[in-house]
Amino acid sequence: MWHYQPPLRDIRFVTEELLDLPARWAALPAYAELDANTARQVIEEAGKFASEMLAPLNASGDLEGCTLRDGEVTTPRGYREAYRAYVAAGWPALACDPAVGGQGLPHAINGVLSEMLNSANHGWNMYPALLHGAYECLMAHATPQLKEGYLAKIVSGEWLSTMCLTEAHAGSDLGLLKTRADPQADGSYRIRGTKIFISGGEHDLTDNIVHMVLARITDAPSGTKGISLFLVPKFLAGGERNTLRCDGIEKKMGIKGSATCVMSFEGATGWLVGEPHRGLAAMFAMMNAARLHVGLQGVGHSESAHQNSLRYALERTQMRAPQRPAERNAEVADPIALHPAVRHKLLRQRALLEGGRLLAYESAHLLDVAEQHPDVGTRHTAHDQVSLLTPVLKAFLTDNALAGALAAQQVFGGHGYMHDFGAEQCVRDCRISLIYEGTNEIQAIDLLVRKVLPDGAAKLRALIVRLDAELPEGALSARARQALSQWREATQQIVQQAAADGELPYRVADDYLRLAGLTLLAQGWARADAVAARGDSAFHMAKRETARYYFDFVLPEAGLCLAHIGAGQNPLPHLHAPSA
Amino acid sequence: MWHYQPPLRDIRFVTEELLDLPARWAALPAYAELDANTARQVIEEAGKFASEMLAPLNASGDLEGCTLRDGEVTTPRGYREAYRAYVAAGWPALACDPAVGGQGLPHAINGVLSEMLNSANHGWNMYPALLHGAYECLMAHATPQLKEGYLAKIVSGEWLSTMCLTEAHAGSDLGLLKTRADPQADGSYRIRGTKIFISGGEHDLTDNIVHMVLARITDAPSGTKGISLFLVPKFLAGGERNTLRCDGIEKKMGIKGSATCVMSFEGATGWLVGEPHRGLAAMFAMMNAARLHVGLQGVGHSESAHQNSLRYALERTQMRAPQRPAERNAEVADPIALHPAVRHKLLRQRALLEGGRLLAYESAHLLDVAEQHPDVGTRHTAHDQVSLLTPVLKAFLTDNALAGALAAQQVFGGHGYMHDFGAEQCVRDCRISLIYEGTNEIQAIDLLVRKVLPDGAAKLRALIVRLDAELPEGALSARARQALSQWREATQQIVQQAAADGELPYRVADDYLRLAGLTLLAQGWARADAVAARGDSAFHMAKRETARYYFDFVLPEAGLCLAHIGAGQNPLPHLHAPSA
Repeated sequence: MWHYQPPLRDIRFVTEELLDLPARWAALPAYAELDANTARQVIEEAGKFASEMLAPLNASGDLEGCTLRDGEVTTPRGYREAYRAYVAAGWPALACDPAVGGQGLPHAINGVLSEMLNSANHGWNMYPALLHGAYECLMAHATPQLKEGYLAKIVSGEWLSTMCLTEAHAGSDLGLLKTRADPQADGSYRIRGTKIFISGGEHDLTDNIVHMVLARITDAPSGTKGISLFLVPKFLAGGERNTLRCDGIEKKMGIKGSATCVMSFEGATGWLVGEPHRGLAAMFAMMNAARLHVGLQGVGHSESAHQNSLRYALERTQMRAPQRPAERNAEVADPIALHPAVRHKLLRQRALLEGGRLLAYESAHLLDVAEQHPDVGTRHTAHDQVSLLTPVLKAFLTDNALAGALAAQQVFGGHGYMHDFGAEQCVRDCRISLIYEGTNEIQAIDLLVRKVLPDGAAKLRALIVRLDAELPEGALSARARQALSQWREATQQIVQQAAADGELPYRVADDYLRLAGLTLLAQGWARADAVAARGDSAFHMAKRETARYYFDFVLPEAGLCLAHIGAGQNPLPHLHAPSA
Repeated sequence: MWHYQPPLRDIRFVTEELLDLPARWAALPAYAELDANTARQVIEEAGKFASEMLAPLNASGDLEGCTLRDGEVTTPRGYREAYRAYVAAGWPALACDPAVGGQGLPHAINGVLSEMLNSANHGWNMYPALLHGAYECLMAHATPQLKEGYLAKIVSGEWLSTMCLTEAHAGSDLGLLKTRADPQADGSYRIRGTKIFISGGEHDLTDNIVHMVLARITDAPSGTKGISLFLVPKFLAGGERNTLRCDGIEKKMGIKGSATCVMSFEGATGWLVGEPHRGLAAMFAMMNAARLHVGLQGVGHSESAHQNSLRYALERTQMRAPQRPAERNAEVADPIALHPAVRHKLLRQRALLEGGRLLAYESAHLLDVAEQHPDVGTRHTAHDQVSLLTPVLKAFLTDNALAGALAAQQVFGGHGYMHDFGAEQCVRDCRISLIYEGTNEIQAIDLLVRKVLPDGAAKLRALIVRLDAELPEGALSARARQALSQWREATQQIVQQAAADGELPYRVADDYLRLAGLTLLAQGWARADAVAARGDSAFHMAKRETARYYFDFVLPEAGLCLAHIGAGQNPLPHLHAPSA
């Protein structure tokens, strides 16, 4: 059976030993009061909630899925009770502003919560995961009246919310969307259109659902510059039902406890959030946080994949290992954790998981700096860097999570293919994270084309300078420094070549993002190794072994990325329908 | 919706233009009469059966799955009818000996059939896929009486068969199995034990099911040298029910139309096949063919993943491509097949799929040479080479198939995660091929530890010499030659290092197998390029483009494998339970 044991010691290694977040919070007035003990307690409570309330519902939620009847969605057994407990404990408000009822904790802590909820139960976590996005949108863009009517209930989790973006013909390309919004005399709008893939579009967890809907106001320009954002509640303030409904729920590969809805808006009443035609900008303002959380979902899946396959590998005996402790000589078979092929899988999972966790928590902290640091220059620099890191986090950490989940499944052998052991669900659930919130290919274009190239890679170079400066003394630092310098050179080459060949960045974007991710983790592991070198526990020794494994067996893939980027200078063939 | 269009033109490119199989069959007396037209007709009919009878049952079979009631399994709607049509058309007998009712066609043709059945419907194909293994076992090892009683009905497909190997504690390690066989005065045995993961252990497709069961005769030695093979039918010759039953069917990730059974043998009557205690040898004799067929399942999934994602990419329009034909300038969005990230995915799928098809068909032909060539030396050489190639085919082609299926799913975007489009089923079905019939990690050990190293790589060097000699003139051949030479050098290095470090081959086995696969495909693509250069159709031009893509974007991974093999000289850390 699939279990979840909160990796508290590993988390503390990152939050306290590596990043020393309590010291860093001291520089941010909003969190200056937050001490290590409080942070630790919050994290431990989050771990308890995840492992005790959510993990037991993970397999059953997958088996039961959601049902739709007469427009009403029933979530799997136990989901409602877990959500009530989640609200009662105040988790939705964790990182919200105390001025509107939030607890005012930093993104870095909220990130740990996000990782844990996802390790335990991705399907369930889809419902509250969207709440913070709506909160940020409304905080930044809503009128005082809308804030008055909705914000407190969203912060408390009493009402859940959705993001209604996708339409059948408009997925990655929101510029194609057709949902209309007709202005009314009273300042409201009538929304008409059909949205698909709406997570939590309908469910039985809360009394009301607040839809954030992208639509075009009558006579708006075409394309992305004619899209506006609307708040469209399931129930209006007076209590009457709005004219919108769930027309279907998708049968999908995984996260089956999450209702993925087709939503029809039939002249539904909504209110504009932010300026007309500036809906995409309002939506994208919260994209950094949203994409960071998908990266943390990747960390969450990587963690549960790793800890479950490790436990199985330590228990399951099959065949003699080529080398084994003398005390096992009389046995007929050894734990598969002694077989080198299995060790490779587990070490690779661990190197990518723990490196990814460091990168994700550090980026979450950078987001806190970008929002809360008293110095405007520091805020801007942090914002620039978090913007560069966000697409890497989203794509690289979810790619690694899927690979880690598949490796876990392989460690379970035939049992990994069967439902009972949970490994196959981990693969199925995890798979969506490479697709939603902007496919990983979109992230690569976002990184290279939208963020690195426009300023000739100036901001990226600044980031690399900072990363280089942070490297401690040590053998691994020299290798990390070399990786940073190769990244900088590859970037420079692309900047130059892109001037003459506008398609080139698109041809190399995926490899460029992977190169960035591998290099960032090299920098992180060099630092982790130096910190671990100060300890002499088995825990710290294992960290150093994993660091070395990263450099020997994971980082070499950067060379492959560079080879692909080099080959990407040549044009790529076009594809045609097959010959008969 | 997921479709299947038999890739007849691509198949002919391999069977006729590249391999010129009809000319090669002329050297094998058993197939000397087989002409190109007949072969082509058989392949076309197989394509019709797969696309018209099986493909329409693929999605529905996945949704319905199998049900077990009172020990009886009901297969999904349409499975029985399709199986009846399959038997009526004589497909089970395709590659069986005419002396026992077979059609006497070569493995190479049977391989094409296998690819197609699997492209269309892996779940359904699980039932007949096991038939050929039982046929080969019985042909080689059964007594005349057993042959008389069972062979003709297996060849005709009137009865289906199973392979009962795995037990709960004995998966990859069959030496641990506990099922017992007590000899009876009449020469039969009473079989007692529980087998798990038995594909087609119970179903409603045939009146009788012939189980091939591994068990230990009373007082047999422990370990792999005390295992015998038994034929245990569901119904005995007199028509009475044997004392065996299906105790459960697994809920699993994919191939849901295939009943994966827990089988209890409760003193069931069985007969020894082959010598006592030599059951594993008898079973493994047919392993080359069985593993080749799993490799062909990989080709089958790769094909359906590629053709479906290509069709979708040519139809689906999202965003402007960075370069596009002038006639599209007025459009608001371009087919995603014009976007470089999607082109990379499709080209990579194609390069690995078509290269894999060549390797698989050629290996199937080599199996024909090993069995049918009049010259004993030629037979032995072919046997040696097919033994080396088999684990590569099984593991490399299924690894690539899963990557191809995941890439297809990614091309479909959000729709790829939903059941309706079929991409997610392809991933789920395909996933098992990396696990069953010996996990891909077991294949890697089989290749390096059991096949390459024991003779100091002499047979491998002979294979490389042959591959090198077959390279035509041309720029790509020089690059393939270099790859072959790197493979030879890496092998030599491992041979030397393994003498002092017995664990080393186990540490590098997975990368070694991948290196072998990448190199074999380089040799294949160099030949394919030279053959395509003789044609000037768009079809041949596309083949040359794909060849170049292979060398620019796929083969570089061989460098990564070499780096890992180099790093594998150092010991690998051990894993322990996590710290609290």
